[in-house]
Amino acid sequence: MSRITNLQAVLATDESFLVTNLINVRYLSGFTGSNAALVVSPESAILITDSRYEIQSRAETHDVDIVMGRDVIAKAMELLSGMQFGCEGDHVTVNQEARLKAAGNPRATKKVVETFRQVKDKGEIDLIRTACQIATCALGQLVDGKVVGLTEREIARNLRSLMLDAGADDIAFETIVASGPHSAIPHHQPTSREVAKGDLLKIDFGAQVSGYLSDCTRTFVVGPPSDWHNEMYAAVHSAQAAGRNAVSSVSTCADIVSAVRTNLQTTGYLEYFTHGLGHGVGLEIHEDPFLSSEQTDRLAVGTVVTVEPGVYFEHRGGVRIEDTVAVTETGYENLTNFSHDLIDIS
Amino acid sequence: MSRITNLQAVLATDESFLVTNLINVRYLSGFTGSNAALVVSPESAILITDSRYEIQSRAETHDVDIVMGRDVIAKAMELLSGMQFGCEGDHVTVNQEARLKAAGNPRATKKVVETFRQVKDKGEIDLIRTACQIATCALGQLVDGKVVGLTEREIARNLRSLMLDAGADDIAFETIVASGPHSAIPHHQPTSREVAKGDLLKIDFGAQVSGYLSDCTRTFVVGPPSDWHNEMYAAVHSAQAAGRNAVSSVSTCADIVSAVRTNLQTTGYLEYFTHGLGHGVGLEIHEDPFLSSEQTDRLAVGTVVTVEPGVYFEHRGGVRIEDTVAVTETGYENLTNFSHDLIDIS
Repeated sequence: MSRITNLQAVLATDESFLVTNLINVRYLSGFTGSNAALVVSPESAILITDSRYEIQSRAETHDVDIVMGRDVIAKAMELLSGMQFGCEGDHVTVNQEARLKAAGNPRATKKVVETFRQVKDKGEIDLIRTACQIATCALGQLVDGKVVGLTEREIARNLRSLMLDAGADDIAFETIVASGPHSAIPHHQPTSREVAKGDLLKIDFGAQVSGYLSDCTRTFVVGPPSDWHNEMYAAVHSAQAAGRNAVSSVSTCADIVSAVRTNLQTTGYLEYFTHGLGHGVGLEIHEDPFLSSEQTDRLAVGTVVTVEPGVYFEHRGGVRIEDTVAVTETGYENLTNFSHDLIDIS
Repeated sequence: MSRITNLQAVLATDESFLVTNLINVRYLSGFTGSNAALVVSPESAILITDSRYEIQSRAETHDVDIVMGRDVIAKAMELLSGMQFGCEGDHVTVNQEARLKAAGNPRATKKVVETFRQVKDKGEIDLIRTACQIATCALGQLVDGKVVGLTEREIARNLRSLMLDAGADDIAFETIVASGPHSAIPHHQPTSREVAKGDLLKIDFGAQVSGYLSDCTRTFVVGPPSDWHNEMYAAVHSAQAAGRNAVSSVSTCADIVSAVRTNLQTTGYLEYFTHGLGHGVGLEIHEDPFLSSEQTDRLAVGTVVTVEPGVYFEHRGGVRIEDTVAVTETGYENLTNFSHDLIDIS
């Protein structure tokens, strides 16, 4: 069954569905342009885009008819005139809804297409695996070369170049390269600071292949690690392994969170772990499911999530270790195959 | 006056305003993180972000207090409990509005902060000018080197690298490199097609400096142009000059559109011009005002827009010429200073 057929199967009789989230439009139809909407009825699917994309939309899509309209909401209003239809309540804006109400009867929904997207098929996991392999291979090449003396920005640029050379279509998100005291900033933007002896060096990065993304973090040390480096790293290493090994189709997001928090409580680092533990990865770098203690559904086989605990000492340094893992029949597959040990790259 | 003070000056007495569009949060507060909201009351401004950004938000912002909350809507609901407040109707989703209504009385607005953003101050124009200079300088270096035989993707990568070398913080958007028949696709994604003799080569690209963007398109020819190349180019060249020269503080967007369409009508190419004529540029690559015949307000001094007519013969080739121009007291300043002539890069 096509993805559109799967969506049609959950539509109420005689109800259409308006897709305005471009990621969901891509997932369902294959179209990658920057202006589009998709009207799915029980019998048909119509992609709306503008004339810039006339040729591209015909080349990329499957299972849809295509109509042109620069104002895709206006065109959707024509197609849905007088009808009851579902719309994406987490994406349609208040002002768009006011326009749609002038045409028909929109009903705001939550996470309809996103629910399908949570469980990846084999083709999707293959793409994410390829993205992960490209990324970790590039990281290996990066740290095999000279890193000390380069700025954070230069490292981010070199890593991007290595990922593109290895076949990435693009990077997955802006690479985080955080050295020395900057490593204590969970989401640091690369600066002109040069990597120096004694630094921790945290790199959070990913590749994109045919729209699918990878997400990985590793933390290195420049020169022999000091005691606090070793202790902090060991705590994160242990917590990350505990979290990763809790991933399976019989566990929930809450189970994984619990495994990590219990571990960090034992080692005394829990108070320094200040952000979320992980998230789904696919066409978006942050997508459902999010690893939180409120998520108590079992993880379906084919779900892909990150496991990324970190601990941070402000002004001194921080460590994060992150893998992208896929839930399998027998547990999980770690897609980011790169050493979890503290590597001295001096 | 600060930007927040300007916003407070247009708020109704006793009404607060919730900013959830991250570009608007950045414009008002300076904060560049990926998760934030801003609550502006007549007397205060409170930035909400999450713990990943605790250090960064303190470093980047001015004129605001900062509170932490991973779910920024939940935190905004606490701050706005029981109150009447404006919200951004073009950004707040239907599901977010439902949550906000449980806390207080949100009133959807249109383009409040966007209206301020349309008119750039000197500092903003300086940044856009710098981004334009970096971009056009990089384009010059690119075409001074060897281009024939490179793939579209390689050209896009090289141009990115030249822009970063010249001081760009990033590229402004995914570069369009469209060669030969691909040049007929207005928004083409670079492929592995190699540039060859007889091609038109259309490059649409920009640089980013401190968040501000540039946007420029030039079309080249590889080897001596054929007659249809020359005729098509001359038509676009003339239409683009007509549009550009119509930009001033006494003209409207509709005037610029009219100047271009009249020109293309005269040369017989109007039917091949299938997309919008231009748009504002600033912190976003496409922002208000859009050059359309419905926009009949005069352009304020400090407005920055693109003028980018193009004509396209499907399967054969196309030409687009685009400048980013700023409206001045005496007319306009063309910020993308690069030859408008048809250059043979063979």
